[in-house]
Amino acid sequence: MIVRNLKDIRKSDRNVRSRGWASARMLLKDDGMGFSFHVTTMYAGQELRMHYQNHLEAVFVLKGTGTIEELDSGKVHRLEPGVMYALNNNDRHIVRPETDMLTACCFNPPVTGREVHDESGAYPADPANAREAAPVS
Amino acid sequence: MIVRNLKDIRKSDRNVRSRGWASARMLLKDDGMGFSFHVTTMYAGQELRMHYQNHLEAVFVLKGTGTIEELDSGKVHRLEPGVMYALNNNDRHIVRPETDMLTACCFNPPVTGREVHDESGAYPADPANAREAAPVS
Repeated sequence: MIVRNLKDIRKSDRNVRSRGWASARMLLKDDGMGFSFHVTTMYAGQELRMHYQNHLEAVFVLKGTGTIEELDSGKVHRLEPGVMYALNNNDRHIVRPETDMLTACCFNPPVTGREVHDESGAYPADPANAREAAPVS
Repeated sequence: MIVRNLKDIRKSDRNVRSRGWASARMLLKDDGMGFSFHVTTMYAGQELRMHYQNHLEAVFVLKGTGTIEELDSGKVHRLEPGVMYALNNNDRHIVRPETDMLTACCFNPPVTGREVHDESGAYPADPANAREAAPVS
C-alpha cells in the first residue's frame, strides 16, 4: 500500500511548476498503478491551451471556477466544484480559470514525471511505449 | 470531450449505494478512458473491510477523517483531507471513517458499473477480460 500526503508531495520533486499551473504528482508511472494521479492548480487569469496527443486525461474540479473551450467545436463549458471533464478524444482545449482552480487529475497512460509540455501543449509519449501505438492516434 | 457534474450523477443510475458507502461513478469502463473515476462517500462509524483482488485503486481524501488498516501488516494510517492511499498490491484493508469521508477514487481496470462487492469485499473481474490475466493475481 502506498500512502502519501499532498503537503509532503508539494515540498518534494514530485511538485512541478510551470507557466500558469502547478501539479503535485501523487502517483506516477513508477508506482505501477497503470494511471497517474495529480492534484493540479491552474492559476486565475491564465489561458491554458492544451492538447494531450498521447494521453487521455480526466479532471475533477475541487475548488474555484473557470471555463473550458473545446477547440474543434468552439463549445464552452462552465467549470466549478463538482464538474469533471474527460479528454476522451485527445481533445484540443483551452482552460480559462477565473479564480485559482484546484483539480484532481488522472492520466492514462501514466505520466512518468519527466515530460514537459511541448509547444503544442502535449506531453510526449513515454519512450518506453515507443513501439506501441499511442492510446488514440 | 465528456463533461459531467457530480450533482447530476448523484441523481442518476450511476450513483450506487451500499452498506456504509455511496459512490457516484463519474467515469466507467464504457467511457473508454482506461480507468474509472468515482466520487465516493464512506459513512461515519462504519467498518469497511475490502479486498479488490481484480482492481488497483487509488483513493484521495477530500473531506472527513478516519483510518485505514493494512490487514497483512496491521499497520494503521491516518486519513484526512490531502491523504491518498493506493492499493498497489491489491492490499486487504479496513477503512474506519470517523466522520463521513468524501473521496475521489480511480480504478484500473475500470469498473463497468455492474459489479457488486462480493463476500470478500472484492469486485469481480470484468467478464470481458476473462481471457486475460487479472492485473495482479
